[in-house]
Parts: sequence; C-alpha cells; structure tokens
Amino acid sequence: MSGWVKIAGLGPGNEDLVTPEVSAVLAEATDIVGYIPYVARVAERPGLTLHASDNRVEIDRSQHALQMAAEGKRVAVVSSGDPGVFAMAAAVFEALENGPAEWRNIPIDVLPGITAMLAASARAGAPLGHDFCAINLSDNLKPWSLIEKRLRLAAQGDFAMAFYNPRSKSRPEGFVKTLEILREECEPERLILFARAVSRGDEAIRISTLAEATPDMADMQTVVIVGSSLTRVIERNSTPIVYTPRFTPAKDQE
Amino acid sequence: MSGWVKIAGLGPGNEDLVTPEVSAVLAEATDIVGYIPYVARVAERPGLTLHASDNRVEIDRSQHALQMAAEGKRVAVVSSGDPGVFAMAAAVFEALENGPAEWRNIPIDVLPGITAMLAASARAGAPLGHDFCAINLSDNLKPWSLIEKRLRLAAQGDFAMAFYNPRSKSRPEGFVKTLEILREECEPERLILFARAVSRGDEAIRISTLAEATPDMADMQTVVIVGSSLTRVIERNSTPIVYTPRFTPAKDQE
Repeated sequence: MSGWVKIAGLGPGNEDLVTPEVSAVLAEATDIVGYIPYVARVAERPGLTLHASDNRVEIDRSQHALQMAAEGKRVAVVSSGDPGVFAMAAAVFEALENGPAEWRNIPIDVLPGITAMLAASARAGAPLGHDFCAINLSDNLKPWSLIEKRLRLAAQGDFAMAFYNPRSKSRPEGFVKTLEILREECEPERLILFARAVSRGDEAIRISTLAEATPDMADMQTVVIVGSSLTRVIERNSTPIVYTPRFTPAKDQE
Repeated sequence: MSGWVKIAGLGPGNEDLVTPEVSAVLAEATDIVGYIPYVARVAERPGLTLHASDNRVEIDRSQHALQMAAEGKRVAVVSSGDPGVFAMAAAVFEALENGPAEWRNIPIDVLPGITAMLAASARAGAPLGHDFCAINLSDNLKPWSLIEKRLRLAAQGDFAMAFYNPRSKSRPEGFVKTLEILREECEPERLILFARAVSRGDEAIRISTLAEATPDMADMQTVVIVGSSLTRVIERNSTPIVYTPRFTPAKDQE
C-alpha cells in the first residue's frame, strides 16, 4: 500500500506560522481533505484534488480520507491550528477504530501546528505562562454539566484557562453561563482576554476583567483566555502585556 | 530606539518544526540569548553573537536581553518548544516589570512554537484531543501543595493531563508522589504516556497504565501525558495509536 493519511495543522492563519514539515506534506499530497475555509488555504496545483466539506461532517470526511488512502492516494487532512487540539485528529481515529480492519494498515501521521490558544497567548504576552487548562465550550459532543464541572474545578485549582469554541449562533447561552460560573468562582478583577482571528488581517485582542466582560465579546473566531489569580498587566506606551508569573508564593495557596 | 527583543520558540528539536517566522527572526538578530542547548541550535554567522547561559538563571538572562535591546541590539531570546509554555516569555516579562522604566519602550514580541506536549500528543495519536491541563511538576517556583491540589482537581474533572519537568536528579520524589496521587484519583487502567526527546534522533514513546507506570520512566527530557477516563488505544500491526474521543456520553459523567 503506497497511500497514506497525514493530519496536518495549518496554524492560526498566517502562512509564516505553518511548519516546514506541513508545507512539505502539502506539496507531496494527491488529495486535501478538510473544512471549506481550511482547504481554501492550500494552493491549487496540477495533480492535487481539493475536497472541501462543511462543518460538522468530521466523521464522513475522515472516512473519505481513509478510503482514499486505502486506494493508494496520499491524503492530507487539514485542520486550523493543531490537529490534536479540538480538531481533526481525534475524528480520524474514531473513523479508523470503527472502520474496516484493513484501514489499520494505512500509515497515519499527525503533524502538529501552532494552536490558537498559544498564538493568542504569544500575542498578548504570556497569560498561559504557568499551569493552564484548555476547554472546548461547545456542548455538541458532551453534556453541559461536564463543562460546568470542569470550569469550576479549573477555577478552584487556580489554573489559567483557554476556551475554544466559546460561542456560536446556535449556542448563544453557553458563554453567558460560563461567565456566570467564573464570576461565582473568581474575583471580579480576574483578567480575561478575547483574542479574535489571531495572526490574520482582522486580528483583535481585547483585555477585560470578569466584572466587565460581556458575552458578545466572543464569537466562534475567538479564543478566550482567563488568567489565574496571579495573572497581571504591564502597562506601556504601546499595547499592554498580560502575563502569568512563574513564581507562586506559598502564602497565596496554602 | 532600533533594538528589539523577540522571544522565539524553537519547537521540540527537529528543524522541520521551526516556523518560518522564527527562522526569519534568527536571521535578523544581532544577539541570541538562551539556555546552552537551545542556543546551540542556532547556526553561527558573521554579525551574530551567541550568549549561552546555564539553567536557572532565567531572570539574569532576561535582564541581559532587555539591556542589550535598550542599547540598540536585535535580540532573540530562544526557548525550546513554545516560549509561553513553562519557558522564557514569563521570565522576560518579570524582568521587564521589575526593571528600569525605559525598558517599557522596547518592542517585544513572543513568537509561538510547537510545544513539547503537542508534539508528543501528535506522535502518539491524539491523547490531548479533548479538554486537558498542562502542569509543571517542578516545585522550584511553587509549593508542592499547589501541585498536589491541581493534580487532584484535574483528575476529578476527568481532564487529560500533560506534565512538564516531571523529574530531575534534584527532585526525584515529586514524580513518585504524582503517581501515588493519580492512583488514588484514577482507575488502574488509566493510560499514561512517556514521550522522551520527541522529534529528535533519540525519540522514545512508551505507552503504559497507572498500574504499571514506574517513576524511572520519566526524566527531564520527558513529557508525560495522562489520558482522561475515555482515552483509548487502537491496536495496529505498526505502533498503536492513543487518542481521546471528541464525544463524551452523558451517562459517563452525570
């Protein structure tokens, strides 16, 4: 079998954040599979077929990729960010596990990329500079009760937090509840960052506090980062820097 | 002022995982500052001065970088992985916050990189494919009681977990305690991965369970990943795949 599947992370949007490893795979592939806006980032060329599909068909898309690889194609499944963080890698493995036994002979690699929360953290300073959690706020695939439980435990552990998929038109209430939960668990001055379209032309970073944050500050293009109790702002003449110190005094936590 | 500081992530080791953004900055810099093995990854060239320093002098190194930038140098501070994840970005901002006021005029950027846990996750499959925490197990800069608290809360929230700095010669007991805590909070079959030197020539990935894991499976070159209760293995003729499904059934968590 000469076919393969490589699940490749395209990073947050800027081409300067695509790794050489991923660029090489895009140049070798015969077929590109992915969500429409991510496939649109791959340049057309002779010998390459682009298969763009809509959101929420991740398993169909994964089965298609595996089937083409079983037929000898070199298939790149593209995700924004890192494919292993709330993206296509887990979907491909679900399809593999539940698919025909012969699919288990297909060479499959995951190629990491710059995930949105780390691009956002870099742009703001280093708000994820100490222990942190990454939570997907979508309740499409898990019960809301589990999201609430994780939010409360993460706050009680004084982790910084990064939220993916904070808010969509079909789920406007989840982020409203998220802010309510955080206000119960954290002090009003707690820093919260809204990082939209990081590294792209329409990038916007907004620094707020839990007291002042409103649900409409987030949409599906936004990664939200909540600081720990120690996260702080350095004021400058240019944009302020938000960072979480490496040092936690014993008295703060005992 | 023409100087600047760019805090750049070199990724986990393989040059194919260095972003073009970082490569361009290394080519523009007049000075490279960092821990000895990371500075050694930057090629020497005329006009470039390498300043390699030992571990545990992060603040001295940061002050040196900021001072050189204030004098007009173009300074790249290099970290392995992502500089915002348990690396140099927070140290530079600590030095900036506590340094002379004029340092706040220095242009400072953080350039993200592929962090070790995401390189390790990609190599193993997608064990961080759903909600997860990143925890630094070193108690050099925070009390052990806080580490223990975060481990228990992360386990109770059924997060997957990634551990940086799991074990050093000067702190052999921390990872022993970590495994004891996890065995109290999680079932014996819980998957645990030891990913050493990912993307480098001596890479080694070991899949184990909490029941079978021993402290000597980790060292300072290792990232440890603990799955959630749903993390699973797909057996193949070649290396097995470890992944965390996207879907959490309501009955498992209510």
